[in-house]
Amino acid sequence: MTSTLVLLRHGESTWNAENLFTGWVDVPLSDKGQAEAKRGGELLREAGVLPDVLHTSLLRRAISTANIALDGADRHWIPVKRDWRLNERHYGALQGKNKKQTLEAYGEEQFMLWRRSYDTPPPEIELGSEFSQDTDPRYADLGAEMPRTECLKDVVARLLPYWESAIVPDLKAGKTVLVAAHGNSLRALVKHLDGISDEEIAGLNIPTGIPLRYDLDENFKPTNPGGTYLDPEAAASAAAAVANQGR
Amino acid sequence: MTSTLVLLRHGESTWNAENLFTGWVDVPLSDKGQAEAKRGGELLREAGVLPDVLHTSLLRRAISTANIALDGADRHWIPVKRDWRLNERHYGALQGKNKKQTLEAYGEEQFMLWRRSYDTPPPEIELGSEFSQDTDPRYADLGAEMPRTECLKDVVARLLPYWESAIVPDLKAGKTVLVAAHGNSLRALVKHLDGISDEEIAGLNIPTGIPLRYDLDENFKPTNPGGTYLDPEAAASAAAAVANQGR
Repeated sequence: MTSTLVLLRHGESTWNAENLFTGWVDVPLSDKGQAEAKRGGELLREAGVLPDVLHTSLLRRAISTANIALDGADRHWIPVKRDWRLNERHYGALQGKNKKQTLEAYGEEQFMLWRRSYDTPPPEIELGSEFSQDTDPRYADLGAEMPRTECLKDVVARLLPYWESAIVPDLKAGKTVLVAAHGNSLRALVKHLDGISDEEIAGLNIPTGIPLRYDLDENFKPTNPGGTYLDPEAAASAAAAVANQGR
Repeated sequence: MTSTLVLLRHGESTWNAENLFTGWVDVPLSDKGQAEAKRGGELLREAGVLPDVLHTSLLRRAISTANIALDGADRHWIPVKRDWRLNERHYGALQGKNKKQTLEAYGEEQFMLWRRSYDTPPPEIELGSEFSQDTDPRYADLGAEMPRTECLKDVVARLLPYWESAIVPDLKAGKTVLVAAHGNSLRALVKHLDGISDEEIAGLNIPTGIPLRYDLDENFKPTNPGGTYLDPEAAASAAAAVANQGR
């Protein structure tokens, strides 16, 4: 038995456009991001990859991307599950800061460590500060699990329990599963799926708005390692652009 | 213990604007309908009525209304449940037909019987015809429950099992529940909540886009019979306009 998993990174947000670290700050899609989501839906429809169930984060840029894409693919009516474990990496004290200014203030080495090292989180965010979510009602049940910063290793650690307990059961039931999420929560998932090392994951970028299909075997390992982008050419050029972010 | 239920009828669809019988045909919101949904979200936010869980039909005019309203109220992240039992009444062979032309062709008495009688459904839709949903994948599991036409009595009969099995448990758990649905599925629910007779329900119209709050006691009966519209003046004038539809 095989199953189909489709990953979709949200389109450009207003803060992507302004080159700010976003993390858990709940900013909307830009007009370009909405257009990317629409294109994502067209790619699903054209490829006949029709999700049976949707998993999203609790952040509107992923939620809106899924809503727009699924409406375009005529799958707006499928069941939905949302969980904080699919959220973007919490960027700690960097949330709300300009990427270029951060690069200039802290230098290339520290900047790249925060952005790309597997296990070095940025400094913790101050509770009660402007871009902290510690009083946000959607996280009220998290208690001690509520992060104040995260590195990618932390994202892997909080994502995998959701993968096992919520996504794998849907795949086991034979459903085509769409996961609409974020650059780092999807990198964490791809790291697990493809068995990518802690070092190699630094170089992996996932482009926005282009559905990435994984065909999984009975052990939920890819029969198409690395997955298959529904628009491979657009994915290749977009991935290159993401790698140059902040320059 | 009391609980809060909020009913939201979808905003104007493209077929409302064209005065066509819609039923289970899955048409989108018009621009006006999107604006109504946005206003619905503002009313929720201004009143501090913040849903903890959403129930919708499988039709995009209700789904989009909920998406837009919840985004506006900053509650886009709440859990979602969708079910065909919240769908609009199936309008049978009238689906896709112009209301004014139907009135002229069949006369006032027959027209009003189909629109407003409690237990006289329109003629059944022909399977495989343009506006039939018999091959729509979202209804693949319905089997013999798949309607070919419905009167309001049929809607009550298929809605109440969902009310009892899915909505009441959320209310019991103390959640504020938003039901985003349709003119007739919401009339069916209001009939049950307020104990309205089969005769009197004919005169009840629910306006679009204006959240209707019910405060329910421990037996899930309203302590505010008839509910409370979050914009009472707009509700009164809109209800009058609905009553004149098709003239």
